[in-house]
Amino acid sequence: MMSKIVYVTRRERFNAAHKLANPLWDDETNKKIFGKCSNPNWHGHNYDLFVTVKGEPQPETGFCIDLKYLSDIIEERVTDKLDHKNLNIDVDFMQGILTSTENLAIAIWEQLEAAIAEKGCILHSVKLYETENNFVEYFGGK
Amino acid sequence: MMSKIVYVTRRERFNAAHKLANPLWDDETNKKIFGKCSNPNWHGHNYDLFVTVKGEPQPETGFCIDLKYLSDIIEERVTDKLDHKNLNIDVDFMQGILTSTENLAIAIWEQLEAAIAEKGCILHSVKLYETENNFVEYFGGK
Amino acid sequence: MMSKIVYVTRRERFNAAHKLANPLWDDETNKKIFGKCSNPNWHGHNYDLFVTVKGEPQPETGFCIDLKYLSDIIEERVTDKLDHKNLNIDVDFMQGILTSTENLAIAIWEQLEAAIAEKGCILHSVKLYETENNFVEYFGGK
Amino acid sequence: MMSKIVYVTRRERFNAAHKLANPLWDDETNKKIFGKCSNPNWHGHNYDLFVTVKGEPQPETGFCIDLKYLSDIIEERVTDKLDHKNLNIDVDFMQGILTSTENLAIAIWEQLEAAIAEKGCILHSVKLYETENNFVEYFGGK
Amino acid sequence: MMSKIVYVTRRERFNAAHKLANPLWDDETNKKIFGKCSNPNWHGHNYDLFVTVKGEPQPETGFCIDLKYLSDIIEERVTDKLDHKNLNIDVDFMQGILTSTENLAIAIWEQLEAAIAEKGCILHSVKLYETENNFVEYFGGK
Amino acid sequence: MMSKIVYVTRRERFNAAHKLANPLWDDETNKKIFGKCSNPNWHGHNYDLFVTVKGEPQPETGFCIDLKYLSDIIEERVTDKLDHKNLNIDVDFMQGILTSTENLAIAIWEQLEAAIAEKGCILHSVKLYETENNFVEYFGGK
Repeated sequence: MMSKIVYVTRRERFNAAHKLANPLWDDETNKKIFGKCSNPNWHGHNYDLFVTVKGEPQPETGFCIDLKYLSDIIEERVTDKLDHKNLNIDVDFMQGILTSTENLAIAIWEQLEAAIAEKGCILHSVKLYETENNFVEYFGGK
Repeated sequence: MMSKIVYVTRRERFNAAHKLANPLWDDETNKKIFGKCSNPNWHGHNYDLFVTVKGEPQPETGFCIDLKYLSDIIEERVTDKLDHKNLNIDVDFMQGILTSTENLAIAIWEQLEAAIAEKGCILHSVKLYETENNFVEYFGGK
Repeated sequence: MMSKIVYVTRRERFNAAHKLANPLWDDETNKKIFGKCSNPNWHGHNYDLFVTVKGEPQPETGFCIDLKYLSDIIEERVTDKLDHKNLNIDVDFMQGILTSTENLAIAIWEQLEAAIAEKGCILHSVKLYETENNFVEYFGGK
Repeated sequence: MMSKIVYVTRRERFNAAHKLANPLWDDETNKKIFGKCSNPNWHGHNYDLFVTVKGEPQPETGFCIDLKYLSDIIEERVTDKLDHKNLNIDVDFMQGILTSTENLAIAIWEQLEAAIAEKGCILHSVKLYETENNFVEYFGGK
Repeated sequence: MMSKIVYVTRRERFNAAHKLANPLWDDETNKKIFGKCSNPNWHGHNYDLFVTVKGEPQPETGFCIDLKYLSDIIEERVTDKLDHKNLNIDVDFMQGILTSTENLAIAIWEQLEAAIAEKGCILHSVKLYETENNFVEYFGGK
Repeated sequence: MMSKIVYVTRRERFNAAHKLANPLWDDETNKKIFGKCSNPNWHGHNYDLFVTVKGEPQPETGFCIDLKYLSDIIEERVTDKLDHKNLNIDVDFMQGILTSTENLAIAIWEQLEAAIAEKGCILHSVKLYETENNFVEYFGGK
């Protein structure tokens, strides 16, 4: 029987402060490399997060995954830890990691992958908008 | 000579009523599984549909496919049948199918695939937004 | 001392089914006047609701109105009653009213006006999008 | 001769950190009143700013105001001071002011009013989005 | 009996070429005043047009104005004349007028006002986006 | 060691005039094939351009590529040449090419590929919106 893989995406949002600064560098070097993103007093963003899972619709429900369940996983493991927080200080899974959008997307993937697999779906991508002009997408390293 | 495959997307919209309810289940079970989406008196959405085809631009026109033609196919085979309709009742190609976004995207793909192939292009994906926070994408089952 | 009136807007969303049909008319007349919006089996929309209140920021908080409170009022009095519902059947405050976007905006205003006044603010407008191309705004009849 | 007042709007954006906290209150009280917005380690937003001026189009140009000039005024007096900054610490014109969206819009108005009047136009409104769901508008206190 | 004025808005779109150039000035002066907008070989935009009318909902329909009729008026009198056209050359109602967004909004108002009044509604505003960052609004000169 | 490829996207915008017309055909044939897009006096668009590169975040910065650098490349090689220009006349890299969105996306890819490779990243895709309803994506011909 033919498979019918469908990709399902849930958008969530969080508002956070951060700065870009390499702790091994002095302020001047951070300013040179990261520009205004290195402001020692922080800046912040409204992040838009798109989590995509893939799977086959179940005959009884027509769902690959219950979006309420997907939303709950993202809230518990990601947005509750990031929303109205400082990404450099307050977040357990970002300790010691530069808070670039790239690194944040990778870390979000790692928070979600196993919990989604437990429900019989596969995490396909994490897409993260920092601004309307800049976003990154992570597919598990591929 | 090198190929130059380009992916061309047309957005169309339709507004429809539906409910999520498995006819083999009683109302209580449907309510438990589908929550407020199982309201017996229906609810509805503004659906956003993105149809992507791939092909090589033709030397005479620069087009992979005439977007007017693509839009006409989508209108004739999909949106005329869905717009201002009840997805559970009024739609020939959804008879007996649970009207999840996943199943609807698969059914739309099946409505479009052959008609696009007739014009020398290949249907690449059907992306369907149910709300600004929820959407699915179907690539023919891959 | 000079007043500093500020207008504060909260967006909420609801997804609902409805149809446009005058119960005094037969199906043919309703079809002639309302077109596909009169489909007896319903259609639906993702409605976007913008509620604007005006007031002066309080010295202790900088808020005209706590947006959490405003959001709770809208949820309790409006969106809980409309979301995933049939506007023609399920909604107490729409009984006997044609479910045009105009009439729905007026009815939402009437649901909200007193509750907002109780908090020392003034309801300024209710803006309601039915689609990305059609919306109405109501200012209490002015 | 009849006047032809036109309202011209320029959108600008800035990304900033802030927190909501009344310095006269202890942390517990701030937490109770402002919730997660009072996080001592800050959070942040992508702010969207819409500045509207009114005037008559000049016969020689068709412009009420040169949008390049309007954009330069906003950049010099507002967004250069707010972008990638901490609203509670880094901004001269927000010293001692609670950084609610309401207060920020009023302060932006005061930064812009005179500079726009110098060019023969009248500042009509400052509209400021904190998130896609929350925004305020200020018309000079009216 | 209390009036219940509602404001109803219809969005339409058109794509057009234009340039900003005062025919009384030489190319150098136009370049100095209008910058890259004066490119002699034209540039262009996707314009977004929002037409707002006000009136009272009719008891039989719940409509202030049938949006199909409003859309037809706009198409016949405005967008059919502007869409895929050159605003400086092809448009009867823009002959001899500098094609600033301000002047274009005024001219669109004048195209629409009488036709809307014939249907018992009042034209309230014409809002015209040239880009996502620049738009104008015209209320008949007030 | 496992690779951590991340896809980074930068949005840029440009406003341009163009027409669709095959120079080997007469006006009547062009009109028949391209419809209103063949208007001899041109029309235009606000183009939205999304350039996606892939690479691994650098340990020192967390960046795959400095977005300021990516933005500068796009500006220098693409948008400075297209913005407020006539695509059929003014653009060196579009000489003799039909200005369909497909061909324009391919040409933009060719402008960018080498400059991005010089910085140790790989150009992944060029996505180009002509309108909110029509866009194309090019992955180097794959």
